[in-house]
Amino acid sequence: MIFDRTSFDRYLSAHRERFLRELAELVAIPSVTAQKRGIQECADAVQKRLEAVDARVQQIPTPNNGSPVVFAEIGQGKRTLLIYDHYDVQPEDPVELWDSSPFEVRQENGVLYGRGIADNKGDLMSRIQALETWQQTQGDLPLKIKFVVEGEEEIGSVNLHGWVDENKHLLDADGVLWEGANYDEDGTYRVAQGCKGIAYLELRTRRGPAYDLHSSRAPMVENPAWRLVWALSTLKDTNDNITLDGYADHLYKFEDSIYNQVDHLPFEGDKKRELWGLDRWVNDMDDATARRRYFFEPTLTICGLESGYTGTGAKTIIPSHAMVKLDFRLVPHLTPELVQDLLRKHLDRRGFQDIEIINLGGENPSMLQVGDTAIKRAALEAYQQGLGLVPVVEPWMRGSGPIYALSDHINVPVICAGTLWHPNSRAHAPNENILEKDYFDNMRLVAALIAAFAANA
Amino acid sequence: MIFDRTSFDRYLSAHRERFLRELAELVAIPSVTAQKRGIQECADAVQKRLEAVDARVQQIPTPNNGSPVVFAEIGQGKRTLLIYDHYDVQPEDPVELWDSSPFEVRQENGVLYGRGIADNKGDLMSRIQALETWQQTQGDLPLKIKFVVEGEEEIGSVNLHGWVDENKHLLDADGVLWEGANYDEDGTYRVAQGCKGIAYLELRTRRGPAYDLHSSRAPMVENPAWRLVWALSTLKDTNDNITLDGYADHLYKFEDSIYNQVDHLPFEGDKKRELWGLDRWVNDMDDATARRRYFFEPTLTICGLESGYTGTGAKTIIPSHAMVKLDFRLVPHLTPELVQDLLRKHLDRRGFQDIEIINLGGENPSMLQVGDTAIKRAALEAYQQGLGLVPVVEPWMRGSGPIYALSDHINVPVICAGTLWHPNSRAHAPNENILEKDYFDNMRLVAALIAAFAANA
Repeated sequence: MIFDRTSFDRYLSAHRERFLRELAELVAIPSVTAQKRGIQECADAVQKRLEAVDARVQQIPTPNNGSPVVFAEIGQGKRTLLIYDHYDVQPEDPVELWDSSPFEVRQENGVLYGRGIADNKGDLMSRIQALETWQQTQGDLPLKIKFVVEGEEEIGSVNLHGWVDENKHLLDADGVLWEGANYDEDGTYRVAQGCKGIAYLELRTRRGPAYDLHSSRAPMVENPAWRLVWALSTLKDTNDNITLDGYADHLYKFEDSIYNQVDHLPFEGDKKRELWGLDRWVNDMDDATARRRYFFEPTLTICGLESGYTGTGAKTIIPSHAMVKLDFRLVPHLTPELVQDLLRKHLDRRGFQDIEIINLGGENPSMLQVGDTAIKRAALEAYQQGLGLVPVVEPWMRGSGPIYALSDHINVPVICAGTLWHPNSRAHAPNENILEKDYFDNMRLVAALIAAFAANA
Repeated sequence: MIFDRTSFDRYLSAHRERFLRELAELVAIPSVTAQKRGIQECADAVQKRLEAVDARVQQIPTPNNGSPVVFAEIGQGKRTLLIYDHYDVQPEDPVELWDSSPFEVRQENGVLYGRGIADNKGDLMSRIQALETWQQTQGDLPLKIKFVVEGEEEIGSVNLHGWVDENKHLLDADGVLWEGANYDEDGTYRVAQGCKGIAYLELRTRRGPAYDLHSSRAPMVENPAWRLVWALSTLKDTNDNITLDGYADHLYKFEDSIYNQVDHLPFEGDKKRELWGLDRWVNDMDDATARRRYFFEPTLTICGLESGYTGTGAKTIIPSHAMVKLDFRLVPHLTPELVQDLLRKHLDRRGFQDIEIINLGGENPSMLQVGDTAIKRAALEAYQQGLGLVPVVEPWMRGSGPIYALSDHINVPVICAGTLWHPNSRAHAPNENILEKDYFDNMRLVAALIAAFAANA
């Protein structure tokens, strides 16, 4: 089945301004889950937009009073496509590094700037608008579509696994369409069949003075910042190797074919480094090594560090506390629970019992379903039919998401496909952006994927 | 010479409310040098108050366009007493931990709260008011008094040494009266003849991405926060020993008599720990060891640490930069220049050439003039005559100040004497405070010291 591209495109042109306005309205809701801002308002907006394409929509609570999941069903057919997106976004700080207000979409030279516009409100809104365009130009949808739009992706989808367990009866599907696909400096599009896992942990040192103390007392008083530095320095060596006790015992060895697949993927090291302002990779490694590490290496990243006085100039204190935010990216068979357990034991063994570990979210890796599937075939056909492109197939994304819960765990194969993340999209960073052209291409891709997935049922 | 205490006290009673109001007005000026706030306004207020006691006052510029020094001369006599105070204060944050507005003096149960009220606006204002009271009740001052009131003490008196070099002709004196003396949990007053030195350095890692980057790139991209942790972990071991290369070679060995003097000083370890919310000293050392370390040990303190995302919840980034604020407390013959030089070489030797060191101020130690002097004898007599107290003589304060520049460097012996810092004064911390009673006792002490120093000329 091939959809009528001419009428589809004509509708996009006719409704271009409204579609962009609807996107700007969604971005304008500061749905920062980490700070509990704008969540219900954003869920309501998504529900309303889905109802406008005749979806049956419900907001379903998540465990622990988390953000509700917006669940929707539309259309009929032999096949069922489950679409995953999220309506929450990263915090906007550091605000001073934005060239415009983070929650007011700025349109300049074909680029659309705003917090969450790449990750992932642009994807969410363009997929819904693609359904409207299909209905208005092609008629009824040829398959059933289910949307799972969650509101806690940016804090590690802490309650999605529990939500899936409670709502498995709603989630029968033949394939999952994921968000977050990207393309490269040279225009190579990438689709993937999974992602790394993640454990996001905050560590707080508790041993120190009850309040910031004049630093003349330093010969006698334990300094929480020093304790944190000492503890952290045992977790990773200066060659960037993770030295967490017992960690190496759990590392998974893939089939050689997967290493080979990755080694043949395009990788424009120079362009990436230039874009990111780097003059070298870590350890001065070459691009081939960097590419392997990028795909296969689990990571331990300091995302944030804070203690004592951080303002201008000098303040002479012993801080009363110190904090670090750590993110572990996980590969098989590392899990968030395992990593947290290893870390607790590692710290205890070295006398850091006083360092508290706070779990801010985690996801298992989804890196073991890398075969040939109907949803993957449909996606490849959609790129070709809808955009005239042949994407590269990657085994998995290097980022993380709750794919495991909505794919491995319910036994439905997944594909990450989309057109919105370009090499300079700056997801999670100031001046996050997408290209206007890519926004409409994403609708063409969705339409073509619907056609292809329904046709080969 | 003994001053007429009865008429002096009667004047204090009569002008009590005005004196406290003048103090509150001085505290209300947020003279935070670290943030360049309120400096000129505060210097003008100090000048005006000194002129009200008939001082000849000038504001004298400091090198590098630093805060002006308020220099004043009053009275005539054989002896000249040089009084040092400072009109700048520490930043008030974390503001949320204050029980009242930092710059509005709160008076409650005989306690006066406010930023800088202990360190050191209470001392400065009470000394000026003591002169007024002397003039109104005793007549002319029996000696010459010079005030040096600087505005950069809380950023390490970065320009005072240069200012002294430029203004040596103004600074002839027979003794220096310093600020910052304190008393103990058990009411033991302490006077001191010097202080430790300090070097305050900020370190910034420069190698990392140009902007915060999605942390999925961590297998390839250097993380400035990790680099800072690794660098710091080489500077101090987990037993709290400074491991800076070459540092130990410069440590000074005092006469046994000085160690003995310190070992016999009162030291209420339990009370200090309770006050500061600690259940032990560093390394579980006993009080005797803690006391020795407190006096003799140079320190290396992390005063502040910052990198990446420090807000609520999770944000998955590789930070673009990392920063630490370090304060070294110095003993003979360590100097700020030496320490910075050792640190640069230490970092370079370990591959941390990219870590920039920013000098935020320093002072040499003043710990080698611990003998019997006229100003020390006058201070001891003043405590006895003015307050009926016998203070403990300590060789030096554990805090730092620019004593070296205004004493060792111009060859005038110093004494730190005062009544304002009680054990819970919380200098540099939220809810900084002094006791109302101590405020007026400080005036009695100054008057008695004037009498004693003039009499034994």
